Amino acid sequence: MLAFECDYLEGAHEQILKRLMETNYEKQPGYGSDKYCESAKAKIRKACGCPDADIYFLVGGTQTNATVIAGMLQDYEGVVAVKTGHVNVHEAGAIEYTGHKVLTVPSHNGKMHADELDEMLSTFWQDPNHDHMVFPGMVYISHPTEYGTLYSRQELMEISEICRKFQIPLYLDGARLGYGLMSRSTDVTLQDIAGYCDVFYIGGTKVGALCGEAVVFPNNNAPRHFFAIVKQHGAMLAKGRLTGIQFDTLFTDDLYFEISAHAINMAEELKAGFAKRGYSFYLDSPTNQQFVILSNKEIDKLQKEVSFDMWDKVDEEHTVVRFATSWATRKEDIKALMDLLDKKDNIES
Amino acid sequence: MLAFECDYLEGAHEQILKRLMETNYEKQPGYGSDKYCESAKAKIRKACGCPDADIYFLVGGTQTNATVIAGMLQDYEGVVAVKTGHVNVHEAGAIEYTGHKVLTVPSHNGKMHADELDEMLSTFWQDPNHDHMVFPGMVYISHPTEYGTLYSRQELMEISEICRKFQIPLYLDGARLGYGLMSRSTDVTLQDIAGYCDVFYIGGTKVGALCGEAVVFPNNNAPRHFFAIVKQHGAMLAKGRLTGIQFDTLFTDDLYFEISAHAINMAEELKAGFAKRGYSFYLDSPTNQQFVILSNKEIDKLQKEVSFDMWDKVDEEHTVVRFATSWATRKEDIKALMDLLDKKDNIES
Amino acid sequence: MLAFECDYLEGAHEQILKRLMETNYEKQPGYGSDKYCESAKAKIRKACGCPDADIYFLVGGTQTNATVIAGMLQDYEGVVAVKTGHVNVHEAGAIEYTGHKVLTVPSHNGKMHADELDEMLSTFWQDPNHDHMVFPGMVYISHPTEYGTLYSRQELMEISEICRKFQIPLYLDGARLGYGLMSRSTDVTLQDIAGYCDVFYIGGTKVGALCGEAVVFPNNNAPRHFFAIVKQHGAMLAKGRLTGIQFDTLFTDDLYFEISAHAINMAEELKAGFAKRGYSFYLDSPTNQQFVILSNKEIDKLQKEVSFDMWDKVDEEHTVVRFATSWATRKEDIKALMDLLDKKDNIES
Amino acid sequence: MLAFECDYLEGAHEQILKRLMETNYEKQPGYGSDKYCESAKAKIRKACGCPDADIYFLVGGTQTNATVIAGMLQDYEGVVAVKTGHVNVHEAGAIEYTGHKVLTVPSHNGKMHADELDEMLSTFWQDPNHDHMVFPGMVYISHPTEYGTLYSRQELMEISEICRKFQIPLYLDGARLGYGLMSRSTDVTLQDIAGYCDVFYIGGTKVGALCGEAVVFPNNNAPRHFFAIVKQHGAMLAKGRLTGIQFDTLFTDDLYFEISAHAINMAEELKAGFAKRGYSFYLDSPTNQQFVILSNKEIDKLQKEVSFDMWDKVDEEHTVVRFATSWATRKEDIKALMDLLDKKDNIES
Repeated sequence: MLAFECDYLEGAHEQILKRLMETNYEKQPGYGSDKYCESAKAKIRKACGCPDADIYFLVGGTQTNATVIAGMLQDYEGVVAVKTGHVNVHEAGAIEYTGHKVLTVPSHNGKMHADELDEMLSTFWQDPNHDHMVFPGMVYISHPTEYGTLYSRQELMEISEICRKFQIPLYLDGARLGYGLMSRSTDVTLQDIAGYCDVFYIGGTKVGALCGEAVVFPNNNAPRHFFAIVKQHGAMLAKGRLTGIQFDTLFTDDLYFEISAHAINMAEELKAGFAKRGYSFYLDSPTNQQFVILSNKEIDKLQKEVSFDMWDKVDEEHTVVRFATSWATRKEDIKALMDLLDKKDNIES
Repeated sequence: MLAFECDYLEGAHEQILKRLMETNYEKQPGYGSDKYCESAKAKIRKACGCPDADIYFLVGGTQTNATVIAGMLQDYEGVVAVKTGHVNVHEAGAIEYTGHKVLTVPSHNGKMHADELDEMLSTFWQDPNHDHMVFPGMVYISHPTEYGTLYSRQELMEISEICRKFQIPLYLDGARLGYGLMSRSTDVTLQDIAGYCDVFYIGGTKVGALCGEAVVFPNNNAPRHFFAIVKQHGAMLAKGRLTGIQFDTLFTDDLYFEISAHAINMAEELKAGFAKRGYSFYLDSPTNQQFVILSNKEIDKLQKEVSFDMWDKVDEEHTVVRFATSWATRKEDIKALMDLLDKKDNIES
Repeated sequence: MLAFECDYLEGAHEQILKRLMETNYEKQPGYGSDKYCESAKAKIRKACGCPDADIYFLVGGTQTNATVIAGMLQDYEGVVAVKTGHVNVHEAGAIEYTGHKVLTVPSHNGKMHADELDEMLSTFWQDPNHDHMVFPGMVYISHPTEYGTLYSRQELMEISEICRKFQIPLYLDGARLGYGLMSRSTDVTLQDIAGYCDVFYIGGTKVGALCGEAVVFPNNNAPRHFFAIVKQHGAMLAKGRLTGIQFDTLFTDDLYFEISAHAINMAEELKAGFAKRGYSFYLDSPTNQQFVILSNKEIDKLQKEVSFDMWDKVDEEHTVVRFATSWATRKEDIKALMDLLDKKDNIES
Repeated sequence: MLAFECDYLEGAHEQILKRLMETNYEKQPGYGSDKYCESAKAKIRKACGCPDADIYFLVGGTQTNATVIAGMLQDYEGVVAVKTGHVNVHEAGAIEYTGHKVLTVPSHNGKMHADELDEMLSTFWQDPNHDHMVFPGMVYISHPTEYGTLYSRQELMEISEICRKFQIPLYLDGARLGYGLMSRSTDVTLQDIAGYCDVFYIGGTKVGALCGEAVVFPNNNAPRHFFAIVKQHGAMLAKGRLTGIQFDTLFTDDLYFEISAHAINMAEELKAGFAKRGYSFYLDSPTNQQFVILSNKEIDKLQKEVSFDMWDKVDEEHTVVRFATSWATRKEDIKALMDLLDKKDNIES
């Protein structure tokens, strides 16, 4: 059975498992004070071009979002996100559980428009009753978005400028950051992100690690006592080495970028394959998630031999489905999928 | 440098790393629906003698405590723990962060006395103003306790009876459960715990795993929608296989019990070694944590060659220190420590 | 200076102040156990046709919404409201502060459409990933809405049926309930509300009282230990007599309905007066809030002699403004306002 | 039936009701922006000797404590109180509901000892693991305490110094502040309190008002956007005039102090009467709460004609009971109580 339903189907990149093996019996202190965390932080600081960055390793995405957002907001503040943002839809209310509202602006294939953000923030501050409302205290964007789309450098800069104008931090959720950075149609670098954002995370779980996300405060600007905040959120690993070793490996010899580029190559092949066969796409995704429109009949047939994610209904007879590639996708998987499409077409005709 | 400061100094048991390697490229669905989680659950159910148990795998101890406690309490309820309980002292307020008070009863070397619990609960319900107070809605104990001590079967039964009398659940924090079950002086089995508790967790992080705790609701009594509760607490791994494979391995061929017994053997050797050399103990611990009273001078000398945990001040010149063994402690480590003590004595004299 | 900007400009109905005076030196027990609370509850039960209703007196609207909603939801649940609902916009995030998301459906002049609610709930339950989302656990509507509009009996029944179909409670915010019940174009009675809702509150603050809202659980269905929940939310008055006496007075000899009818009469005069003078309305409000479209020039002039609420921008030159009447509005106030309009017109021409 | 069980048995001082009547039909803006709030603030600033004080009027004590404490703490901080402190025992967990732990130090008849506070704070900061613990972020004391006791000026100064040493604010709960200030054995003035505390509240509910507490930040040091915080806690009255008029009246012509002094006079008569008749006291209270030790037989007899509060068990045959006086206690009530004691004695003998 072929599987393309998400980008966390396999374990970890082999190099990570190898390093876990090699270091297994070294005695390392807990809670992130081990030498691998230190080494990983140094490498990430270098990759980001931020020698003063504060870096913390957390375990998963929802946890990271809740910890960072609650850790940076005042009680009376909420976080601004697009309506389709992960924090607004698919985190089981983890943000609200910490007491903070998610304030929404429209989503454009997962992206926020700077001008709509500007208008939302201006409207709030001009409202004479804004003291009775939730203060927008932070902006959350994801890159790539939940739709696989990317901000351009210009767009990112514009959002960042709006945030600075209103003096609120910009937070970028990089659960799939590698796939964004290695997209063939991006002009955004890791250094750009470190420059435009006040905090962001580099996703490990979906990019080669077993688990783990690296939170980066680029300018030594972590909230005071962020360690205690992480602990309070249950996000502190006793064996911090687990995330330390993984990120140290990912940021050695550009492994993170290399495996991300591989996933992009696989996605481009998949995309080209579908396009060549006359399929249309829900949107033009430049990253590892591809959204294809299939007829429900095709879906029924395909699902017998390949798994993918049901995304959204188009009409009574068509559905958007998502095919995701990852660092672990093999060239032969793509070929097998294409063969399946060809075979299916034959059968169908 | 020798190291005994805690029981999470190393990575994972080799068998676990081996299984992570072997299964690495299998495509498994996310969020705990993989086959390794299923298999691990079946094995744990069997070990607990609870064919209907609901089992969830979370990542770490503080997270597990917050998720289970908040998930089972009503808003107006708090959890009863001994004053020294982990939830009351060393979780950075993670329980209160979810809105719940930790109500305390006295600690007796880390243990709760059933009669004091009874009195506390009776006093609450007899107080005509109890509607103005936090309702005790759950009892939390740890086994082994933070002091390495253990409940006897009789003591556990008595606490359980008090809980049932007041119709509140009993929750057992088993961060070091293996070391409790394999102690030479316990009469408590895993089945006993499943019988006396309404929920408990089997600690992985400190007993051979890289991370992971297995929450067991013995009688199919998980709170409704506990999956969403886990997600909301940021405690859901995308790659659930990571905890699934680890617990599946630990509960194959009694590995969990075997490695726990090894840690106990090492602790008993360490204890005997200290005793033989005339050291006294803060308390008589039957598990992998040993609390030795050292003079501050001895501490200064020892710390140059061995790390251990500073626990509590005895008087101006003496301190209680903790030596912890684990599944990874080697016989030669104990011997080296003893040699050090002998050498130190020589030097000192 | 004339004032129409809201319906809480004056103190309390004289009869209330009189009763506060008369009973002032009676010694009454605290926290709502006084005889006036009891008497008020009996009268409200009778007015609602609910002999078994549980009734609690709280102090203000936002407080009541937060207490009721948090008191009835499970941690993983949110409350469904229209986008413009008070709980979603104007309560400074009080609902989220208790850990719960406000899930939104479209607003139609402040009203929820049963079919859109149905679709939202169906979509949630059909989504295979709903365990990663906030569970809709309750429906919140206001009546009158924030736009002064009202549900018909049929509409209320339909929303109630959807709630029952999905087994979630329906909560009605009646901050201005009296003005809704006494509208000339409603077919909804207090008994209807008690029949269709699982909980609602009868607003006092805006309908003749100094403060106070009466929460009604029509079928003896208050959450367990709701007293403690109210206390925990800081919503419990030590001198419960303050709300008891006020509601006892309001529900003696139909005072609540009588003064509400007066406000409606005043609103209808005001509305007719504006209409006669050729003004248009943002919407056709059947209650005490009237939304008139004025030119910005008119606004500038009028504001020198009468206060009203700026509601929303229509275009560059026109604005929707709100005029509110209340139990305390006098016939001569309306006349003075009309004279002002006439005078203004003269001046302007 | 005589009643001494608490100090909130009656309504409000007549002067307050008179002012509510006189101002009833004045149209005043909402949410504390009315002229009476302004006037009351000016008078309180003067009485406190703090021309720059920020002042907010809230409704009740538990609400005020939760709003102030949560409003001033960071997420990872808790509030330090004595074990018997109101926030720790009798607020239904309102503080924890906002996410913050109450950290305790011993209670000495309700009072905190500066040296024990110092030790607690020092111990925390010296603990190498304090990042895993709740940070003490604020100190809470009540004056008078829950036991009617008072801090001396010296004691208050010492606690204040400890707070400043550790750079955390000192918060004083003055639910019964008037009775403390007018005690015959205090050397603490309102100006002293304003000087030693970073925030405190002047209780209205128990000192002549129907409801209402005045929160004072002496040095223009209210948390940013405290209005929104108050609103978020449901503590904002729409008709702010209700608290404005009450505090304006209480702080006109020293009414607050005068009626407090009356309660003290009544308490001293009561105390002398009990003493003269050979009764012993649980402690020597200098304020309006008197704690008398009665035999259970006496209690049974007395309760038929006078209500008082059961406080604590002394032994099988004796109980501490509380008699509270207030601004509303009449000389004849004290006399009647004494007659009752004399009669009872006769009957008994």
